Amino acid sequence: MILLTFEGIDGSGKSTQAQLLNERLQEEGHETLLVREPGGTELSERVRSLLLEPALNVHPMAELLLFSAARTQLVAERIRPALETGRIVICDRFYDSTTAYQGAGRDVADPEWLQSFHRRVTEGLVPDRTYLVEVDPETARARREEDGDEGDRMEAEDQHFYDRVAASYAALAEEHPDRILRLDGHRSIEALHGTIWSDVEALLGENRGTPFADAGSSDL
Amino acid sequence: MILLTFEGIDGSGKSTQAQLLNERLQEEGHETLLVREPGGTELSERVRSLLLEPALNVHPMAELLLFSAARTQLVAERIRPALETGRIVICDRFYDSTTAYQGAGRDVADPEWLQSFHRRVTEGLVPDRTYLVEVDPETARARREEDGDEGDRMEAEDQHFYDRVAASYAALAEEHPDRILRLDGHRSIEALHGTIWSDVEALLGENRGTPFADAGSSDL
Repeated sequence: MILLTFEGIDGSGKSTQAQLLNERLQEEGHETLLVREPGGTELSERVRSLLLEPALNVHPMAELLLFSAARTQLVAERIRPALETGRIVICDRFYDSTTAYQGAGRDVADPEWLQSFHRRVTEGLVPDRTYLVEVDPETARARREEDGDEGDRMEAEDQHFYDRVAASYAALAEEHPDRILRLDGHRSIEALHGTIWSDVEALLGENRGTPFADAGSSDL
Repeated sequence: MILLTFEGIDGSGKSTQAQLLNERLQEEGHETLLVREPGGTELSERVRSLLLEPALNVHPMAELLLFSAARTQLVAERIRPALETGRIVICDRFYDSTTAYQGAGRDVADPEWLQSFHRRVTEGLVPDRTYLVEVDPETARARREEDGDEGDRMEAEDQHFYDRVAASYAALAEEHPDRILRLDGHRSIEALHGTIWSDVEALLGENRGTPFADAGSSDL
């Protein structure tokens, strides 16, 4: 029963890290489930397509509610069943994204209300670890452009928006130091993966009740 | 700035009454806006089609959030602007539907939380009057079948579901006696319309600050 989530602004490299971790876990013989938000169920994918459509008029509160609807369906239909059968679940974005993007980015609701709202939406599910991949917003933008990313509705935001999102992520990490690991996203893909893998090994050790003395999180 | 909403279970006749009232108001020279929930904006209509699709797996909490997303968009994009330009807005279903259907019908959340949630979703907008058209669930079902209604996902519910919804509506009316008018939906369409029209005339009088002595709500 381990839930790992990846967070960060668009272009941070978090999706690459989520995929690398998933592959590594499978190579080591673990059963996994990798999902991305919003998405992962028929309903959630259809909500996703609404959310990302550039031309659609979506009020900030409607956006918050649509992301949350996609999440509650994903948790009920896929994440909980996977956890219950012992799989390691990796989620590319989870509720911290909503706190950062809709809460701080769009100023829809205060963090306290959002926190209790997320608990309701996920029926109390909390990630065992959240990897926050931090890059400065300018680097992230350059990476998105390099990838030929044409920009969906969420990505068509100005720099101030991403500054608020990044600051909100940092504040969340301060508030939940045991859950959220801040990672320097300017490091190489391999170096980042190595740091994440060490942490996951330690978590898996704790989870089995047989902690590894050599695979702690001392380098974080 | 008058917002009138119609509530009741499917097959109660509320939509017919909403339309009749809208026509009457227009005949009398009022500018109106008639909308139905979920719907009324491009986003909300697309959410509606998700909600009513019979085969789609929708978790009860996701349903609550999707209805609320459609509502917040409708309020922001159409209802508030219409009210601000002096139109009379008639809404076929509003947040009481969510309290009754998702709250009581599906037991997703308690009425207290829902009440504060609705305030957030509508940014504090409260109907000036809500017409609750009450019929016994068996009659409503017979009417739906008579209309050749094949039944969408919401309507494919058993009798116990509709009993809970009807009871929740009744409880809401007890709680908000100044806002919610209970109407006997077994009466003829014309008789019901007459009662509603008398009440609306009184409301319009109050709203202009020139109450009609002869058009009170004594027959309610």
